[in-house]
Amino acid sequence: MLSATSIVFRSSRISPAVASRLLECYNRRELSAKGMASMAPVGFIGLGNMGAYMAKNLINKGYPVVVNDVYPEAVADLADIGAQVGDTPADVAQKTDRIITMLPSSPNVLEVYTGENGILSTVKPGTLLIDSSTIDPQVSKDVAAKAEKKGATFMDAPVSGGVNAARDGILTFMVGGKTEEFVAAEELLLNMGKKVWHTGAVGTGEAAKICNNMLLAISMIGVSEVMNLGTRLGLDKKILADILSTSTGRCWSVDTYNPVPGVIEGVPSSNNYQGGFGTALMAKDLGLSNAAAINTKSPIPLGSLSNQIYRLMCNQGYSLKDFSSVYQFLKEQQDS
Amino acid sequence: MLSATSIVFRSSRISPAVASRLLECYNRRELSAKGMASMAPVGFIGLGNMGAYMAKNLINKGYPVVVNDVYPEAVADLADIGAQVGDTPADVAQKTDRIITMLPSSPNVLEVYTGENGILSTVKPGTLLIDSSTIDPQVSKDVAAKAEKKGATFMDAPVSGGVNAARDGILTFMVGGKTEEFVAAEELLLNMGKKVWHTGAVGTGEAAKICNNMLLAISMIGVSEVMNLGTRLGLDKKILADILSTSTGRCWSVDTYNPVPGVIEGVPSSNNYQGGFGTALMAKDLGLSNAAAINTKSPIPLGSLSNQIYRLMCNQGYSLKDFSSVYQFLKEQQDS
Amino acid sequence: MLSATSIVFRSSRISPAVASRLLECYNRRELSAKGMASMAPVGFIGLGNMGAYMAKNLINKGYPVVVNDVYPEAVADLADIGAQVGDTPADVAQKTDRIITMLPSSPNVLEVYTGENGILSTVKPGTLLIDSSTIDPQVSKDVAAKAEKKGATFMDAPVSGGVNAARDGILTFMVGGKTEEFVAAEELLLNMGKKVWHTGAVGTGEAAKICNNMLLAISMIGVSEVMNLGTRLGLDKKILADILSTSTGRCWSVDTYNPVPGVIEGVPSSNNYQGGFGTALMAKDLGLSNAAAINTKSPIPLGSLSNQIYRLMCNQGYSLKDFSSVYQFLKEQQDS
Amino acid sequence: MLSATSIVFRSSRISPAVASRLLECYNRRELSAKGMASMAPVGFIGLGNMGAYMAKNLINKGYPVVVNDVYPEAVADLADIGAQVGDTPADVAQKTDRIITMLPSSPNVLEVYTGENGILSTVKPGTLLIDSSTIDPQVSKDVAAKAEKKGATFMDAPVSGGVNAARDGILTFMVGGKTEEFVAAEELLLNMGKKVWHTGAVGTGEAAKICNNMLLAISMIGVSEVMNLGTRLGLDKKILADILSTSTGRCWSVDTYNPVPGVIEGVPSSNNYQGGFGTALMAKDLGLSNAAAINTKSPIPLGSLSNQIYRLMCNQGYSLKDFSSVYQFLKEQQDS
Repeated sequence: MLSATSIVFRSSRISPAVASRLLECYNRRELSAKGMASMAPVGFIGLGNMGAYMAKNLINKGYPVVVNDVYPEAVADLADIGAQVGDTPADVAQKTDRIITMLPSSPNVLEVYTGENGILSTVKPGTLLIDSSTIDPQVSKDVAAKAEKKGATFMDAPVSGGVNAARDGILTFMVGGKTEEFVAAEELLLNMGKKVWHTGAVGTGEAAKICNNMLLAISMIGVSEVMNLGTRLGLDKKILADILSTSTGRCWSVDTYNPVPGVIEGVPSSNNYQGGFGTALMAKDLGLSNAAAINTKSPIPLGSLSNQIYRLMCNQGYSLKDFSSVYQFLKEQQDS
Repeated sequence: MLSATSIVFRSSRISPAVASRLLECYNRRELSAKGMASMAPVGFIGLGNMGAYMAKNLINKGYPVVVNDVYPEAVADLADIGAQVGDTPADVAQKTDRIITMLPSSPNVLEVYTGENGILSTVKPGTLLIDSSTIDPQVSKDVAAKAEKKGATFMDAPVSGGVNAARDGILTFMVGGKTEEFVAAEELLLNMGKKVWHTGAVGTGEAAKICNNMLLAISMIGVSEVMNLGTRLGLDKKILADILSTSTGRCWSVDTYNPVPGVIEGVPSSNNYQGGFGTALMAKDLGLSNAAAINTKSPIPLGSLSNQIYRLMCNQGYSLKDFSSVYQFLKEQQDS
Repeated sequence: MLSATSIVFRSSRISPAVASRLLECYNRRELSAKGMASMAPVGFIGLGNMGAYMAKNLINKGYPVVVNDVYPEAVADLADIGAQVGDTPADVAQKTDRIITMLPSSPNVLEVYTGENGILSTVKPGTLLIDSSTIDPQVSKDVAAKAEKKGATFMDAPVSGGVNAARDGILTFMVGGKTEEFVAAEELLLNMGKKVWHTGAVGTGEAAKICNNMLLAISMIGVSEVMNLGTRLGLDKKILADILSTSTGRCWSVDTYNPVPGVIEGVPSSNNYQGGFGTALMAKDLGLSNAAAINTKSPIPLGSLSNQIYRLMCNQGYSLKDFSSVYQFLKEQQDS
Repeated sequence: MLSATSIVFRSSRISPAVASRLLECYNRRELSAKGMASMAPVGFIGLGNMGAYMAKNLINKGYPVVVNDVYPEAVADLADIGAQVGDTPADVAQKTDRIITMLPSSPNVLEVYTGENGILSTVKPGTLLIDSSTIDPQVSKDVAAKAEKKGATFMDAPVSGGVNAARDGILTFMVGGKTEEFVAAEELLLNMGKKVWHTGAVGTGEAAKICNNMLLAISMIGVSEVMNLGTRLGLDKKILADILSTSTGRCWSVDTYNPVPGVIEGVPSSNNYQGGFGTALMAKDLGLSNAAAINTKSPIPLGSLSNQIYRLMCNQGYSLKDFSSVYQFLKEQQDS
């Protein structure tokens, strides 16, 4: 059996006070040696709508968190509840040996990891890097290769579930990376989510995410088309939704998130398409899957057309509405 | 209260023996007057793959059935198990006051109802006409209007479920027609199916059917696109199917009828795309929904492209394969 | 050889004065017997934007014209300049043995020809019926078959060229019908146009028309896509238009009717998309080609998507703008 | 007037023998001072189907040429007719101050310019770099920025016209780059082509190329759709082609390169779709325009669908056939 003094912390940078608290926990048998290791500080870079809630959940679970973001106000909010501040990604990498990033797009990820003051400029061997951004799987692979040269491990771990799921700590993570590191990632991620998939090698987490969202877009547009066509053919919207929900056309977009106002209570379509997952964000994700399809020479006729439709909607003023507003886009009052 | 002798059978053509049995039942309070009427003979026109099983189920439930089809062999099969034969649709209409039709396409329906020896040439007032063909909703409305002039009631009642469901008597019917006649139709149809929807006015049964099948086609192509793209991006097919089946991309085409061989046992994709619902039949149904969309000026970008894809597949030799073979069509070995 | 007195006029309704003039011409060998017949009165049904100009051109060329329309004002305008009025299509058919129809859509054509007071109710054997409406080729064939039973000849002769070409008498006609009747039709139509194609059997005139307009829609959307993409990539609009106009992407939509404001003077795009050929009319023609494709099982992926795009534009307020406004629809200020 | 001795060669690296020959020419008034400068040696990297002919034309016009390619045989062919050989792109850059590159795709261009032994590792200030590859415009811009840091000028100059045009020296070049360098580029390129466009800033040459090819793909598919639909509707293929070629559907794909066998002699469709521009190459170019559209958030519904169609064709065995074989793909014998 381990004695307290035999514990080797993965990071030497936790403060004496924290180390003392952790040892106390261990002595009370509240933490295993592994668990103690996991209470070593965690870096968190990218404190937007999603990231801020994720970092807060880590803090609430008792983790020391070192945060960084380009917006000082975002950083200040987290500092107010106890986060330590890293001046740059490089600084965060010096202070921690596990870092989570949650950034808007591929260029941001490249900057935060491989830029001048990026993580990889100071990263320590053995560091675990988890990127929860939704980006091009190829970028994930490229960053992973560079991290490996530094002796660090990079995993892509995009999420499903929106801002509310981030707040409530019930996100789903799709994690691509080496099997031997997956358990460590899972342990950390379960503090912010309820389900963690191991999808395979690096890049497959992103692949799963963009595949799901492309199928979601296709389903949502398809449901919108048939709900509009059916009502024009004389069907009652609720009867049609009931039939589809129990037939071979059944899908999440028809039975759980129906795009027609008044069919299901509490979803964006019944609240003027406010909240939810914005059209511009869906267009962005479809851009990623379309680029991946070009690169792999994979035909995606409906996925490609769905991208065009969400892009047209952005041009017509739908960017900030929930993506189910495609029903409204298709339906709008016909003038001839 | 009715006395036995006051019962007026809707059809005078049931045999004295049958009538006697029905009256006996009535006296024992096992049948209402309406119930007795329901054992009156039923006409059945259209004995194809689906229709033959449907008519057999009626016979097995004890109904006297008068059948008609353009193929003598199809008629002979039913006559062998006790069906009476009508020489023409007009003859069937003279011998029964409830008729079910199950025909391949709109022109056949027009011929059987409004042709020279069609049902409407001899139909009796009060006759209930139920058409289970999948056709243009507008044709249903047109035939219904002509039937009404003769004092008959026409309902469109297309089915979901394939040949096996027809054989096992577990079809789902989507019935468009007057509410006051729906109960009579439902009673009859439950002998061939397990669920009968009342969808609204005449034509809405067809509308619901073609809406569901269009959404099904869209979902199936969408699932095929992402399963192909995802595996090219390095995902394992079963892991991807699992993730999609529990995420917002969830749909029947991914969780119950997955188009990728080896993901789900017992579905056509795991049997070389044999059996199931043929590509040519899906192309035909999509032709109906596309025509309805043109007529109602309803935009259906994905439904329209899905029609083109199934039409292209017919041109490339997929007509008789299950419609989930679109996965194979998208995936086929790339030669550059 | 014919003597003047042996000429039998096809119509007895020309005035003695006209007959006298015609005979004089004949004697001077300026007219063949057939040519003289051509000054017999002509029926004209459908006096809309196009039809009114066409009928006026006939009158201006010296033809006695008997007109009919559902709008009394339209009829009055023509009567003012010398047209005789027919109370109904049937009345026109009694008064003439050559009739031109120019109607909005298939149902109107069916009504005018086969309705209660339709042309075919009174048509004389030998009458030449020319329909310049743009309709479903199958409807043309159906009406032609009914006309033939009455001993009359029906030809479909849709036009290309818009209202200005109708006014100036420079339309192009695409005529489907029997070769032996084509010369008579051509002689008449050249009074309203500058070019008359004989496209083949009945229905092929319509087929050619809807094929051309579908290709036009595809070209116009394609040009709009690349002009928008190219300028976003930094190209000057005029340089790009010049390059495309002299390269393999060359087409009428880029070199003669460019959809980008300011590239070509005098076209609708340089006049706020006013005038020209309206989006709703293009959507209607695309509906015809799409229906024909469904009926003939012809894959038309781009034609079908073009139909959806013009249908969406109608829903977004573009119905009355020229169809080149698809450039504006694609381009509109992006909000994210 | 210039004396021979006042000529300043742009490059000091031409051999005394060459310089002597040039001066001799000048004295015979066969070359202007400018022309003499232009006879300085030219580097040529990328000796594939197109590049080999282009380099040969330079040699035939009297230019000393220093060649490089990854395939030794390709290099040997040029050496046989007098080319000097550069061991690597870096070596070529040391030996010349004007270099033309003609490479298959973006990664090749990046390797040749920015790789370990790439041009930019040794390039001299003042060198003119002309890339005739068809690649992503963004890559052109990136390479141009890196070249500028070395004091060199990079221009993108993709071509239109295929292998035969390369052989015959009648290519068209679309050149993006600084105006002040354009004349020098044009002078060189006119030895290999008949027309040189200045399209604007760096990247716009590629932009023009991919815009034109996307419009070409759209036109070709559109023509194929209407030629197939029209003939199914009863039109003769030559009559339909004639009508379209003189109507608003007019385009290069219908009047010059018709995809239907037997309509125009001497084009690939009349030679079993052999020769011409291969389907796989078109799919590659459409991948570039689609990626550019994603990056610039430009909706390209038809361009995107065209990409999918050519990608599907590659999967069905059409890669090496001319891109007009899309007619055959759409038309193939229908089996239901």
